[in-house]
Amino acid sequence: MTSVSEIEIIDALKLKTFDNHYKNIIQGIGDDGAITSIDADYHLVTTTDAISEGVHYPKGIEAKAIGHRCLAVNLSDMAAMGAEPLWASLVFSKPSIDQLWLEQFILGFSELANKHKVSLIGGDTISGPELFSVTLQGIVPKNKHIRRSTAKIGDLVYVTGFLGNASQGLKIVQEDKKNSSSKKLVQDFLYPHPRLTESSAISRFASSMIDISDGFYSDLKKVMKASNVGAEIKISDLPISELLLNNIPKEDAINAALFGGDDYELCFTIPREFKKDFLEDYQSTDRIGITCVGEIKEKNLLLLDDHNEEFELSGRAFEHF
Amino acid sequence: MTSVSEIEIIDALKLKTFDNHYKNIIQGIGDDGAITSIDADYHLVTTTDAISEGVHYPKGIEAKAIGHRCLAVNLSDMAAMGAEPLWASLVFSKPSIDQLWLEQFILGFSELANKHKVSLIGGDTISGPELFSVTLQGIVPKNKHIRRSTAKIGDLVYVTGFLGNASQGLKIVQEDKKNSSSKKLVQDFLYPHPRLTESSAISRFASSMIDISDGFYSDLKKVMKASNVGAEIKISDLPISELLLNNIPKEDAINAALFGGDDYELCFTIPREFKKDFLEDYQSTDRIGITCVGEIKEKNLLLLDDHNEEFELSGRAFEHF
Repeated sequence: MTSVSEIEIIDALKLKTFDNHYKNIIQGIGDDGAITSIDADYHLVTTTDAISEGVHYPKGIEAKAIGHRCLAVNLSDMAAMGAEPLWASLVFSKPSIDQLWLEQFILGFSELANKHKVSLIGGDTISGPELFSVTLQGIVPKNKHIRRSTAKIGDLVYVTGFLGNASQGLKIVQEDKKNSSSKKLVQDFLYPHPRLTESSAISRFASSMIDISDGFYSDLKKVMKASNVGAEIKISDLPISELLLNNIPKEDAINAALFGGDDYELCFTIPREFKKDFLEDYQSTDRIGITCVGEIKEKNLLLLDDHNEEFELSGRAFEHF
Repeated sequence: MTSVSEIEIIDALKLKTFDNHYKNIIQGIGDDGAITSIDADYHLVTTTDAISEGVHYPKGIEAKAIGHRCLAVNLSDMAAMGAEPLWASLVFSKPSIDQLWLEQFILGFSELANKHKVSLIGGDTISGPELFSVTLQGIVPKNKHIRRSTAKIGDLVYVTGFLGNASQGLKIVQEDKKNSSSKKLVQDFLYPHPRLTESSAISRFASSMIDISDGFYSDLKKVMKASNVGAEIKISDLPISELLLNNIPKEDAINAALFGGDDYELCFTIPREFKKDFLEDYQSTDRIGITCVGEIKEKNLLLLDDHNEEFELSGRAFEHF
């Protein structure tokens, strides 16, 4: 295995990727800092998330998925703010690397960056413990960002996509039980798809938004706490995929949907009076499905069964990795 | 030892520090991303530097110095761009922490942040390997940033402060030879002072600038490469402190000044025609001393002795930690 120097990592990142979308970059990689510009009608949005082996992903997963993941988790935060990502700074720390590993990491990072027109403007490479950190900068029209603290009583609670696939995918990786039928769940864990296209439509109507990284239940609670409200969620309305239901018992699938992390879907609230316009607008072009799962209430987080009575948690609440 | 949760770290960072200078922050810590604004006459400047135990500092140094360091290295980059720092995002990764350690880390970070009116706007905390990464954002009047690629033949080469103290300080820590006379050198390593006050005066006249993190020789070479020029440096003009000369033989002190890292002084070039105005302006208020050490030439980096002949390197070139 060829070892790779710090300079080669920067060069590889700089040269092989991120072409044709150097938006507002006056000075990119190559000086003490990057220089960029923000148009006067916009605010700057900044997110920072780091991932570490054994904490955010299991040892031994493919390098491409790690490169994808460290950017994806930040893109998901950017989507949750209703913002457009522009520039990434990457801290790349690894004790040693070989050329093939690096190429795959860069492939995962750059494919996602190019998809969302994100440019790498700086960072740091270290022969240190395995950890990858991204600070992502983006823009949002002034005062149009979507907070998690502005949900109102009566608003409808929506989520994008399916819940629970990623945490089951992770479990399959951890237990080394991958087979042809569970492959898609593993992919859902390895390659989360930040909902940026969806976010730009949602943010025109949403009163609050958060991305689901720690699990729907936990992240909805953050919205409730920040907004000082409660919520009622109908368990039978949770979007659970056929794929997941074919893989584990329904009870476990519900637990995964409620408590499983790593889905990187969006959870958002829509004022009732905007519901019709929102759905018309959202469904007018091809986007991932959305599901109304409940309503913002005055207080507490209540999970309801089909008879509108309190849903009994199985007691086997999903343990997040 | 009390263990500290992720929430407590964020709360401690958020609440105990960084008061009274929330410049242009619309949304700080507490949502998926931070929202800030840039005035129309300014460009955004972004730096990212991470530090890791055993790579950037030896195991066992005080927590306060680590908190200081992870911000200082970024402030130094900001100074080298001629920019004003505003907002920091911190990735805090450590396998376990106790309350006292955390308090000291925060003290080191926040004292320096408050000194330079920098606010913490976000970040991430991880129970992971020891690594601290900061992305610092700042501003510079449009097109007034100082590059390392714009030194011109005939420009004078200056440095701020003294060279070599920090690397000798590190050596003393590594060899555990601290005593009353060498204490100041150790402090120079543990608590680098980013030259932001100096930078704001220098950047009105400088044609190029870089901060000295890897050693004067190595960092000047980066300026030369980026600017496609050479330089002549007079060894007897290198600013070497009495303190360093009292601690090690002159030959070793010269090596430390040339090749020792971690000084975090500025190296910059001043066009000859600006020399008089620059010195008058710079020396009109109380700033760290500056020294002219040479001149930009067409090519090669030539070290000259007192007879203007090539200086013989001792062969004991300083090994950077």
